[in-house]
Amino acid sequence: MKENSLIKNKAILELLDKYQPIWSLNHLITLANWDIRTYMPEEGIEARGNALAEAAKLSQTLFLKEDFISLIEKAGKEKDLNDHENAILRILKRGLKFYQRLPRDFIEEYTKATNDAHLAWKSAKEESNFKTFEPHLEKIVELTRKKAKYLGYEKHPYDALLDEYEEGLTTEEVEGYFNSIKKPIAELINYIKKSGNYGSEHALEKIKYDEDKMKELTKAILNLIHYNMNHLRIDTSSHPFSTNIGKGDHRITTRFEGKDFARSYSGTIHEYGHALYDIQSHEDLHYTPIGGGSSLVIHESQSRFWENFVGKSEAFISLLYNEIIKANDEYKNYSPREIYNYMNLVKPSLIRMEADEVTYHLHVLIRFEIEKELIEGKIKVKDLPKIWNDKYEQYLGIRPENDQEGVLQDIHWSDGSIGYFPTYSIGTALSAIWKIHLENEIGRIDDLAKSKDGIGKIQKWLKEKIHRHGSTYIFRDIVKKMTGEEFSSRHLIEYLEEKYKRLY
Amino acid sequence: MKENSLIKNKAILELLDKYQPIWSLNHLITLANWDIRTYMPEEGIEARGNALAEAAKLSQTLFLKEDFISLIEKAGKEKDLNDHENAILRILKRGLKFYQRLPRDFIEEYTKATNDAHLAWKSAKEESNFKTFEPHLEKIVELTRKKAKYLGYEKHPYDALLDEYEEGLTTEEVEGYFNSIKKPIAELINYIKKSGNYGSEHALEKIKYDEDKMKELTKAILNLIHYNMNHLRIDTSSHPFSTNIGKGDHRITTRFEGKDFARSYSGTIHEYGHALYDIQSHEDLHYTPIGGGSSLVIHESQSRFWENFVGKSEAFISLLYNEIIKANDEYKNYSPREIYNYMNLVKPSLIRMEADEVTYHLHVLIRFEIEKELIEGKIKVKDLPKIWNDKYEQYLGIRPENDQEGVLQDIHWSDGSIGYFPTYSIGTALSAIWKIHLENEIGRIDDLAKSKDGIGKIQKWLKEKIHRHGSTYIFRDIVKKMTGEEFSSRHLIEYLEEKYKRLY
Repeated sequence: MKENSLIKNKAILELLDKYQPIWSLNHLITLANWDIRTYMPEEGIEARGNALAEAAKLSQTLFLKEDFISLIEKAGKEKDLNDHENAILRILKRGLKFYQRLPRDFIEEYTKATNDAHLAWKSAKEESNFKTFEPHLEKIVELTRKKAKYLGYEKHPYDALLDEYEEGLTTEEVEGYFNSIKKPIAELINYIKKSGNYGSEHALEKIKYDEDKMKELTKAILNLIHYNMNHLRIDTSSHPFSTNIGKGDHRITTRFEGKDFARSYSGTIHEYGHALYDIQSHEDLHYTPIGGGSSLVIHESQSRFWENFVGKSEAFISLLYNEIIKANDEYKNYSPREIYNYMNLVKPSLIRMEADEVTYHLHVLIRFEIEKELIEGKIKVKDLPKIWNDKYEQYLGIRPENDQEGVLQDIHWSDGSIGYFPTYSIGTALSAIWKIHLENEIGRIDDLAKSKDGIGKIQKWLKEKIHRHGSTYIFRDIVKKMTGEEFSSRHLIEYLEEKYKRLY
Repeated sequence: MKENSLIKNKAILELLDKYQPIWSLNHLITLANWDIRTYMPEEGIEARGNALAEAAKLSQTLFLKEDFISLIEKAGKEKDLNDHENAILRILKRGLKFYQRLPRDFIEEYTKATNDAHLAWKSAKEESNFKTFEPHLEKIVELTRKKAKYLGYEKHPYDALLDEYEEGLTTEEVEGYFNSIKKPIAELINYIKKSGNYGSEHALEKIKYDEDKMKELTKAILNLIHYNMNHLRIDTSSHPFSTNIGKGDHRITTRFEGKDFARSYSGTIHEYGHALYDIQSHEDLHYTPIGGGSSLVIHESQSRFWENFVGKSEAFISLLYNEIIKANDEYKNYSPREIYNYMNLVKPSLIRMEADEVTYHLHVLIRFEIEKELIEGKIKVKDLPKIWNDKYEQYLGIRPENDQEGVLQDIHWSDGSIGYFPTYSIGTALSAIWKIHLENEIGRIDDLAKSKDGIGKIQKWLKEKIHRHGSTYIFRDIVKKMTGEEFSSRHLIEYLEEKYKRLY
């Protein structure tokens, strides 16, 4: 790698040079995973699974090469590394630790198991039959418990899993976080219940739409919200996601259920928020392990920021209104204000991805509790449908009627992503911190979202404070550095109370 | 690798085991190349180019590992290898030779140059401006001449390039082949000219179509012609191609020009012919270097077989007729017979991919002559537009009016594929040999193409004689083994004379 505006240390540059084959493998693996979820012919999964398992082994081999390890050690002795250089070293050391601790055979077995499980989950969900997914999930839980042991932890095996998605996050901290929001959220729901409108349905939920027309609206959203469509594409997948393939190559997906268009709308804007973080990462961080966002909490703070504060604002809905009503003649019967009300309805729902801002955190809490107990071995995979449904009844007062709208709804476990869910809620809390500070500095989002120009200002602020750093900082550090605050759920709760006491 | 029905030798199995990371890289690289031409956001090309260059170096590193080389040597001492085992060894030795002779830096430079050139070609073609592509092509010709030197050759540097695409093919042989067809084709064209109908246009050429409806026809073609759409997908790209990503994952592309639907139709069926060869390769050859077709002459004999003998037959057009007329109301005014006439019109044209079966070979000849002289250094890249146009005037009696319909029309040179074109014509000659023998054994294609069942019989025959062997045999050997004949252009000429003297 050549010296650039951010990375100047010779030892780090030498290390990055040797990192390029690993970077290249990551690039190809990321693309292959995108392809599995978008365009791969069904029968291609066996070969793809084998290719990914081999590539993971190859990546490990490259990491564990003696000359690579000694370059990491050499760079570790450097003094006066800047934040970016330190972060590169920190993340490569993390990667090394990961590969040193996880045996080759284990990685291969794990990669194959998750590939198989993903496919099994897909058809199990289609058929709404947990039984066909059960043996796969059992395997994944077993392998994940092994993984926690291999990776090591101080207090709780779940710590090792959390750390994979958010460096340093612990079970204790997550519990503390949920304890800080449980009560105020329950109280807010009670407040809304008293209004008599909790759980009421909106007519727009029932209106069916044509998928092709909704695709046009999706394009219109991106054309309005984003400034360059030559580095961003959108496709359809059963579970929306965002992926950062490399410089100039960012992809998101959305899905179309045929009715209740807020789901597709919110999904698109959510994934866009993820993509923008990667897109606006400093260009001199490309080809390094810190190019693009990697902290999931920060990532989620971006996707939830766009989804909730911009996408669901009356200002943005008004700005997009002409495009919205092109998607369906019936939408014309609803004013921007009414669409805003529809998009901000609070009600207990079965599907996390469609949950409102208030009850959302309870969906995440349910998953956290289940994952923790699965890893502790306190509950069994075969009992999950019942446990899941009981918890929905306990926390949200409703009970799924089948596995599809219950335990099978999320893709995560099929991919082996256990320990990931808490970042959704914590990231949302972080988004509220960004909101307060952005508004103090450049004005209310409800005003900015009225125009393309204002949206550009939001993008610029986020770039400056967060995006350009890529994954240089862990979430606690970046929030401290950029806002002077310690992370807490305080702003989230204040925001929710202010907004929903106004609406109900 | 586990012992299977075709591969039993322990040394070969051991070798294949070590080959798996290379296989996996090939898989990921093939996908990444498909993506460049189909869905990659424009600005992703830099990162993709770097990733592919790194992956090529990585592949070379794996090939040149001492333990891999010694396994190849060990397997080379085995006696009683069967044809498949021998072919695996032969192809790995070829790969090894390639990597031993081409320096690492050269491969990297070459990969990057072709990635850049591909993009430059794309926009140069759009703008019909050879000048912007010229420096890229100069670089590619320079690198290709270097490549020929590195790879080595006995008589002619172009031999080294031909060998890359068709093992053992020489410049002398290609010249001999073209000499054998030049005169009879010129005579056939003269015959057609005397009929007074040479070069006449058909009204169907002018009829514009709706792209979405034509996409539906494309799907209908594949649904009719193929037996399983869970391992085959079709997309759109500016230059149609077929790619074999792995077991159960086959992809073709087509293009839509908005009129003259035979182009899109023929392109789809042509690429399908390629895909079927890979699809019907024996499943125990997957994950080996001979899984799927690799000989380009055999490959082209399959694509041209389906395009010319099945796709352009009156029987198949009749079978598909109801779908054809769904694509455009105006098509209803033409009977299957008239569509057949339209699809089999002989006329001088500027675009190789749209050429009829008779003049097609002259398009290839022009490219062969140009490539040979470029490699010999007798002509210069900057003079290509004029040379190209002069040759079209000389051989076909027409002159391109711009670079887009002239020297910029093909993707090949931008990809560094110099030495590839001759396989198109030779492969077509081979397709005529298959035709004769298939018809002697199971009946006339004009009868078989009348029904899905008959098409199934054609697929089965091709599988048995050709496809199942993957790339076990080089084209001269497979034709000898399966038909008892030596390869020649005799059947091609007989077929063309019979068909076109009947039509004109």
